[in-house]
Amino acid sequence: MNMRIEALREQLRRANLDCYLITRVTSIYYFTKFLDVKDANLSLILPKEETPILYVPELSLTAAEESARNCIVKPVKIGEKIFDKVSKELSALRARRVGFDSLQASFFLRVKSKTRGITLKPTPDLVWSLRKIKNDEEISCMKVAAKMADRGIKAAIETVRKGVYEYEVAAEAEYAMRSSGSEAFAFDTIIASGPRSALPHARVSDRKIREGDFVVIDIGAVYNGYHSDVTRTVIVGKPNWKQIKIYKLVLQAQEKAFRSIRSGAKARYVDSIARKIIMESGYGEHFVHGLGHGIGLDVHEPPTLNPVSMDVLAKGNIVTDEPAIYIPSFGGVRIEDTVEVLKDKAEWISNHESSYKLLP
Amino acid sequence: MNMRIEALREQLRRANLDCYLITRVTSIYYFTKFLDVKDANLSLILPKEETPILYVPELSLTAAEESARNCIVKPVKIGEKIFDKVSKELSALRARRVGFDSLQASFFLRVKSKTRGITLKPTPDLVWSLRKIKNDEEISCMKVAAKMADRGIKAAIETVRKGVYEYEVAAEAEYAMRSSGSEAFAFDTIIASGPRSALPHARVSDRKIREGDFVVIDIGAVYNGYHSDVTRTVIVGKPNWKQIKIYKLVLQAQEKAFRSIRSGAKARYVDSIARKIIMESGYGEHFVHGLGHGIGLDVHEPPTLNPVSMDVLAKGNIVTDEPAIYIPSFGGVRIEDTVEVLKDKAEWISNHESSYKLLP
Repeated sequence: MNMRIEALREQLRRANLDCYLITRVTSIYYFTKFLDVKDANLSLILPKEETPILYVPELSLTAAEESARNCIVKPVKIGEKIFDKVSKELSALRARRVGFDSLQASFFLRVKSKTRGITLKPTPDLVWSLRKIKNDEEISCMKVAAKMADRGIKAAIETVRKGVYEYEVAAEAEYAMRSSGSEAFAFDTIIASGPRSALPHARVSDRKIREGDFVVIDIGAVYNGYHSDVTRTVIVGKPNWKQIKIYKLVLQAQEKAFRSIRSGAKARYVDSIARKIIMESGYGEHFVHGLGHGIGLDVHEPPTLNPVSMDVLAKGNIVTDEPAIYIPSFGGVRIEDTVEVLKDKAEWISNHESSYKLLP
Repeated sequence: MNMRIEALREQLRRANLDCYLITRVTSIYYFTKFLDVKDANLSLILPKEETPILYVPELSLTAAEESARNCIVKPVKIGEKIFDKVSKELSALRARRVGFDSLQASFFLRVKSKTRGITLKPTPDLVWSLRKIKNDEEISCMKVAAKMADRGIKAAIETVRKGVYEYEVAAEAEYAMRSSGSEAFAFDTIIASGPRSALPHARVSDRKIREGDFVVIDIGAVYNGYHSDVTRTVIVGKPNWKQIKIYKLVLQAQEKAFRSIRSGAKARYVDSIARKIIMESGYGEHFVHGLGHGIGLDVHEPPTLNPVSMDVLAKGNIVTDEPAIYIPSFGGVRIEDTVEVLKDKAEWISNHESSYKLLP
């Protein structure tokens, strides 16, 4: 049996669980090599000893049978309910203590009502503790995805100018990523210009870019299921002193935090390095999110870099480093790269250099 | 207070609930006009009488304060947990019977452990019964989104030919949708050529299109939060008799089902019309999913058209009509349009005509 499954079984033993239930599509891919669409309704049951069982809806059956490894594939036909199948299987396995990564409450309640004497325990860390350490093969996929995003960023920057619509910038960025072979987009592209740049979660609108705007470009590509996530901020036309100050501050915060990233560093310490620089310049209240997040088969995954994180970075983590300053109605700057955590240092995975060329 | 909120309160009374908890981002948009990114961690608490309360992470606060209506916006700061906030609020409101649309089991368990005497009940239908009836304004947004997808389909069809990569077809389709002003993509684009066309959930790969391939193109655009979903199947080069037969069958099934769609029609009856045609030609086992699904602020929402659906169609529903035949290793055909349900008939919202031009 596969090494990842053996490693999860070791986690089960330590957590005193006798079975594990996985519904997260990306984790199912991690353990079986079968990747379904994002909202697919799958369940992988991993008993302590028996062969894992993967339930898939009939429409995914051919694909799962072709590509799923390390498990038996069983179909859920139209009219059948996956929670019924899972409940029966757990009962047949005489499972007592079942861990799970991610379940809908309605699914959880149905399994509870259809089984007896089973404790279902949310224990997502069992999977994340494995997934957050990337091996060489995974890291090389992340690097390919990062290169695709770099090309998207380049295309977007070349498109940004006065009079262009935000969605036109998105079109060029996405076209460049797709033409590089990106199999999907990591998330809904963000192109946030002018006052919208002060909104971290702005998507793409039909706003026309104006002279003097900040334009935040946040995009990501996907390669073999692995994601990239890169943000650049462009100033349109001649920048004013406040724009220059903010841009330089964010870049400085990003780089100083980067230099503190290494195996063994506390995630909240790395966050504090960037946050301190921004706070000491009086913009602390405008840095309204954590410094970064792990990234891999999901765009947002452990470890988490923020002021309350308990995570400790380790070799093989890939994380984002993305400080920002958002000033309501004035605008915002975010600079984001993905970073590989090594033993004694960190390495940029995305093309960090390109944020210099934008330095006003 | 807003009519939609009043309507949900009426549902609460009927279901004997005294509070409702919404975490689905699209439903929060439906009730408050505040649209966040897909994976945003929001909670809207709607008490029987008091003003609704919307909890948003600090990074969404400015955007929520600018656009959220019909509610009080409260921030969840870095380090605070949204389930703590929600638990305290439910206790303060002395809520006893709380319905919810969609909750993670871990969130559900945390609220249970932090409150006393509260029953949390999955009752998603309360929201869906409202959302599935679209008003004129919503329908006109759906039509704009459909037109954007039609342009994407046109661009994709023009790109499909021997020697082109699947991702190049995706690039052109998406570029055309974006350039029409699409604010996002409805889902990960599907371009499935050759044997991959037999996989309903194939995404985009780096396969090179060959002479004689089926190429399934399944795309969607977004306008004001409303989605479109259109599929066309192209045959590359000279079709063989079996390809022609399958294409015509699927088209016939789609149109005959369409003619049975009207207010009052049972969803499973509409499904049976299409399924019967495909079954009688001996391909029944290869139509491995339901005929269609409701679509709106989500790509997949009620009502559901499949053999076990209990839904009855009503004026204002927008549904997809998408029969298909998937023959493993040979290939597959899916033809999909979005359809508006009217009193005595149905109307195509996407450009159904374009599937004729592809008729071999």
